[in-house]
Amino acid sequence: MADILIKNGRILTPKGFVEKSLLIEDEIITNIGGKDAAEHVIDANGNIVMPGLINAHTHLGMTLFRGYADDLPLKEWLNEHIWPIEAKLTEDDVHVGTLLGCLEMIKSGTAAFADMYIRMDGTAKAVEASGLRGVLSYGMIELGDEEKGEKELKIGKEFVKKWNGASNGRITAMYGPHAPNTCSSEFLVRVRKQADKGDVGIHIHVSETKAEVDQIEVQYDMSPVKLLDVLGFLGPDVLAAHCVWLSPEDIRILKENDVKVAHNPTSNMKLASGVAPVPELHNAGITVGLGTDGCASNNTLDMFHEMKMVALLHKVHKLEPTAIPAQKALEMATVDGAISMGLDTGIIAEGRKADVIIVDINKPHLTPKHDLISHLVYCAKGSDVSTTIVDGKILMEDYEVKMFDEAEIMARAEERAKDLMGR
Amino acid sequence: MADILIKNGRILTPKGFVEKSLLIEDEIITNIGGKDAAEHVIDANGNIVMPGLINAHTHLGMTLFRGYADDLPLKEWLNEHIWPIEAKLTEDDVHVGTLLGCLEMIKSGTAAFADMYIRMDGTAKAVEASGLRGVLSYGMIELGDEEKGEKELKIGKEFVKKWNGASNGRITAMYGPHAPNTCSSEFLVRVRKQADKGDVGIHIHVSETKAEVDQIEVQYDMSPVKLLDVLGFLGPDVLAAHCVWLSPEDIRILKENDVKVAHNPTSNMKLASGVAPVPELHNAGITVGLGTDGCASNNTLDMFHEMKMVALLHKVHKLEPTAIPAQKALEMATVDGAISMGLDTGIIAEGRKADVIIVDINKPHLTPKHDLISHLVYCAKGSDVSTTIVDGKILMEDYEVKMFDEAEIMARAEERAKDLMGR
Repeated sequence: MADILIKNGRILTPKGFVEKSLLIEDEIITNIGGKDAAEHVIDANGNIVMPGLINAHTHLGMTLFRGYADDLPLKEWLNEHIWPIEAKLTEDDVHVGTLLGCLEMIKSGTAAFADMYIRMDGTAKAVEASGLRGVLSYGMIELGDEEKGEKELKIGKEFVKKWNGASNGRITAMYGPHAPNTCSSEFLVRVRKQADKGDVGIHIHVSETKAEVDQIEVQYDMSPVKLLDVLGFLGPDVLAAHCVWLSPEDIRILKENDVKVAHNPTSNMKLASGVAPVPELHNAGITVGLGTDGCASNNTLDMFHEMKMVALLHKVHKLEPTAIPAQKALEMATVDGAISMGLDTGIIAEGRKADVIIVDINKPHLTPKHDLISHLVYCAKGSDVSTTIVDGKILMEDYEVKMFDEAEIMARAEERAKDLMGR
Repeated sequence: MADILIKNGRILTPKGFVEKSLLIEDEIITNIGGKDAAEHVIDANGNIVMPGLINAHTHLGMTLFRGYADDLPLKEWLNEHIWPIEAKLTEDDVHVGTLLGCLEMIKSGTAAFADMYIRMDGTAKAVEASGLRGVLSYGMIELGDEEKGEKELKIGKEFVKKWNGASNGRITAMYGPHAPNTCSSEFLVRVRKQADKGDVGIHIHVSETKAEVDQIEVQYDMSPVKLLDVLGFLGPDVLAAHCVWLSPEDIRILKENDVKVAHNPTSNMKLASGVAPVPELHNAGITVGLGTDGCASNNTLDMFHEMKMVALLHKVHKLEPTAIPAQKALEMATVDGAISMGLDTGIIAEGRKADVIIVDINKPHLTPKHDLISHLVYCAKGSDVSTTIVDGKILMEDYEVKMFDEAEIMARAEERAKDLMGR
């Protein structure tokens, strides 16, 4: 990809908006404000130039399940709908589901995401093709079965070996032990050692529902977070998804170990999991990224929606209108997400990886323009993103997706979904 | 306007989706499935044809305040920001703000709305020009001041006289006593009598915040709802906005009087007002419409977002994933809203007023199509609406707004907002 110059933009930097040009060379932002020409020039036309959004927890293979089973009790949803259909999923299904998810993310301004799922070669190949940045992990469920654990860890190891650092570093891999209630203590310790050996991080679900916390309490007489601490599992390379049901001691432990949290407000609301103590996590100084979770529990991948949700949910939950202001919601979806996933993105600055989007603010629902940070969080939608650049490559420009034939991917997804339901 | 035929649509009827044609003559839906020609034919191309959405509570004049003051404590927000700026508002400001709001609503598929505000001639003229259906009321604040009450009621009466039934019945008027804590009992009784005399409804804020309920409890030793009941104020023509802080007795009283409720989930979340007992209201058999509230507390007018919010908020609040399923959220934003505002719309059926929208479902975030009701609530955005028809007149077709020059209205709104802030 040639040099790209974005001119006439309002660039969102860590110090606020600046009206300057932005130069991208190869995959790096090399200059802000000093250049006025390049091989490819994009006129931002007064619109917002900002970091590509970062989705800290999702399962893109599940995009094929969008709208498949809603408004059900959690056990029925899992036992009668999600797990039976997941048992039939092929790598090709996951591949097509991920392509659809990537297409939606490119169109809604998400540049990077953390994904834990099954048949992950299907996911990784789609990420490779999409141009997006993926932090991928194979979701290992061991259930205390040593033989199954052996197999799962083998798949996890092979996935890390094959994909970590692939596509010019756009793909990084993590280990993905599913959760403390679906993996034994012994298995979790093995995973920790393996992660240390390969110097890769760990993505895990922690304390998503009251029921799973109760289960661990009965089994181990301590909370899931305490259990993970006792096992020596926790560390700054752990991305803990959900963390809805935390005690003050859990929060202290997460902070002591510099664990990163991925908060999923819409999913927690739709599945009625509960409200994560995000203001308390912030007060403790813990880095919290923002995620959509999978399309079976959201049902979209729109990070603009997620920013609005995190800002709204905690206000009403605390009866406190100052909880999670717009600026913090925006940081959660950008720089905090990047830190939580070990990425050098989420900020527009010279020397950073060029994951950059343009948000088209010339629309009635973004008028008048008293406060653009407020508008990004409370008014903008994914459909306001006109241009998405990841790793210095243009994936969408002026609403036109460059990497994919949209109609073809939608047709393939419909066909795969229909086939899957008929199996 | 000539006859309009919408063909190749998936028409959302009270009995589910039907793939038929829909004929509109003058302002009425005259035929479903029996005609194949008309003066103007719209090819819906397999997309969803459904009732235009109904916003049961808003203040369009406040659209100029979008993003002006967020994330503040309620008292500071009102005392230091909203009320000082409202004191400077001219009819022209309200007119331009309403034009901007109407433009946003046309683009996001809202056909009708209930509005209570000040300088309402500015609002009514904008509604007249926009083609939308408005149920308008002048917001009267009396504060126990008899002289002020006289003036307010005079303005309210003149507004009803001038605008009720205007624009071929597209505009209806209501009386708008602001709230039981901003109007004395005597004034509320006068308004009730006036409404009975003129056979028009009443739009009022009720029990939005805990603080105002406490205030009424101290003053009258009863809840606001009980007070209104004792005064003989309540009835089937009362549209009570918010109703966040209700006791079981309040709910019983609302049902006995067949009062209609306008629920505003996003506004209640953003202002940290609380969570209205909507499942309990439904269980009691009370009609609950859905509203966005004004742009200072949302900050958009997108009823698709509001449908998702109502479905999500009550699930997490009750820790019950079956609370307010998608079908019910959709009814709240259509037929229930229509009933709450006394309108003959919100349903696609022969003989009904032709308020009809087309939702473009040929998009990645609406793929695959397992369940279109789910998609309308959990995935669709206002930006997926391609065509908006109100009272048999096309206001937007294939994303092109017919009634307004979009750029001109945005420019006027920016100019007015800037001027207002500088006063």
